[in-house]
Amino acid sequence: MNSELYFIGVDGGGSRCRVRLESADGTLLAKGQSGPANVMRSLDTACASIMDATAKAIEAAQLSITTQQIVLCAGLAGANIASAHQALMAKQLPFKHVHLISDLHAACAGAHAGHDGAVIVCGTGSSATRYASGSFTDFGGHGFPIGDKASGAWLGLQAVKHSLLAFDGLAPKDATFNAVCEHLQANSAEDIVRECAGFNSNDYAAIVLPLLPLYRKGDSVIQGFVQDGLGYLQRLADEVLNTPDMALCLIGGLTELYHPMLSNAVKDRIQPCQLSPEEGAILLAKQAGDFQ
Amino acid sequence: MNSELYFIGVDGGGSRCRVRLESADGTLLAKGQSGPANVMRSLDTACASIMDATAKAIEAAQLSITTQQIVLCAGLAGANIASAHQALMAKQLPFKHVHLISDLHAACAGAHAGHDGAVIVCGTGSSATRYASGSFTDFGGHGFPIGDKASGAWLGLQAVKHSLLAFDGLAPKDATFNAVCEHLQANSAEDIVRECAGFNSNDYAAIVLPLLPLYRKGDSVIQGFVQDGLGYLQRLADEVLNTPDMALCLIGGLTELYHPMLSNAVKDRIQPCQLSPEEGAILLAKQAGDFQ
Repeated sequence: MNSELYFIGVDGGGSRCRVRLESADGTLLAKGQSGPANVMRSLDTACASIMDATAKAIEAAQLSITTQQIVLCAGLAGANIASAHQALMAKQLPFKHVHLISDLHAACAGAHAGHDGAVIVCGTGSSATRYASGSFTDFGGHGFPIGDKASGAWLGLQAVKHSLLAFDGLAPKDATFNAVCEHLQANSAEDIVRECAGFNSNDYAAIVLPLLPLYRKGDSVIQGFVQDGLGYLQRLADEVLNTPDMALCLIGGLTELYHPMLSNAVKDRIQPCQLSPEEGAILLAKQAGDFQ
Repeated sequence: MNSELYFIGVDGGGSRCRVRLESADGTLLAKGQSGPANVMRSLDTACASIMDATAKAIEAAQLSITTQQIVLCAGLAGANIASAHQALMAKQLPFKHVHLISDLHAACAGAHAGHDGAVIVCGTGSSATRYASGSFTDFGGHGFPIGDKASGAWLGLQAVKHSLLAFDGLAPKDATFNAVCEHLQANSAEDIVRECAGFNSNDYAAIVLPLLPLYRKGDSVIQGFVQDGLGYLQRLADEVLNTPDMALCLIGGLTELYHPMLSNAVKDRIQPCQLSPEEGAILLAKQAGDFQ
């Protein structure tokens, strides 16, 4: 048994969490992965996923480490909600110390290697944050259906709405309609209503996959949705980039779709991500230094 | 104890049900009211509400009637969904016969006294139907958030989205923003997200009440939402009125808002409702005649 200090960086979202085990000097020892870790949606599931992914990383590292030697640096979806943050901290997970931040902040710190900068995330959900003068300013990310415009969940919902209009004769029974009906195995508006009854963000976002080939072929309906989403992301970018030298990283599966259409002023600021969200979470914990 | 046949007409929705007790010749004997009766949302609650309202009507009629003498003519929200329809019929409620239809069909039959005609409903939700050649053709009414455009729930959601944009600096902190924040007692985007977490259609529709004074004052944000909703209702009206002599009735708390802005071609078709949805449910059951 050694008595060294270790760090686990966590990137936890609605469908899975990834962890990274580092030595105190920042050397990567192992990685691990497990299930969902959204503290707002399910605290117990998030804790179980973190412990499971941590155990996998320790095993993969083939070192004799206990969690009491580890500083947990967790960037988790939902941790921006004060009540969810407090609830996870109250669990007193068996680590030397727990430094909990949102997945968005971890992603931003990773993208800019701990320096000032902004990120726009557009995947299942959408959100943005700016890190400057040692603090974050968040935008969007309010969840579905009240927020997250331009996201995969939002795009999927637009396609579902369009398909219901088509069943009612208020929109054409076009390629978008066919793709949605095939994905949901629906032959009627009632089928769609029943299928979508218990849908969450992930379910709506899953509808986007069969729509992307239509978008690439120039389908006007999907292009209309994307233009609407683009308008939001452009405004979000204009708002988050409040100083002339602020760099921007785009994160998430749908940013490739929107990237070419953003204004040149925004595109000029875009840089590739330097580090992962897991590394970002560790950087922020080390900056805070509250584990010593 | 008499051995006459009686009819109970029910108009059951998401927040309450109203019943009407009639003798076989159509004489009104008494009315009753109870809680929610949406068979899709809660079958047991719907059954309990119907039995409770029926008992109240029998008591108010001061007649010695058992439910075995009564034909239940129920127009219930959710009864258009085949699985919910079957589930209620399988309950074998203790009536002489149960004739179950959707609340929309009952409203349409009542509005046109059993004759051909169309209705557009716009209250908490939105939907439309056309009755012609002995059968109904439905439009909209797919529920929230995938359908029900122009409805109270939809309007409330637009206002919530606007308020979140305002907190993010992407929309002005205007009168709509202030009204939503006051209604939800919210001081931050996080407050709104937490308040709306478990919201259903009724909760979103409740936001509309404090917005109506702004609309009447000419507030451009609310007017923008209403114009968007109007576009949908106008297309719905154009679709539902498929023959030159089809009459239209407007039903629901928000139709007054949209009525003056509909096209003249649509306004020329609008007539006042002749009978209530409860009476419409009884009319349809008598037309079907399957209780003899």
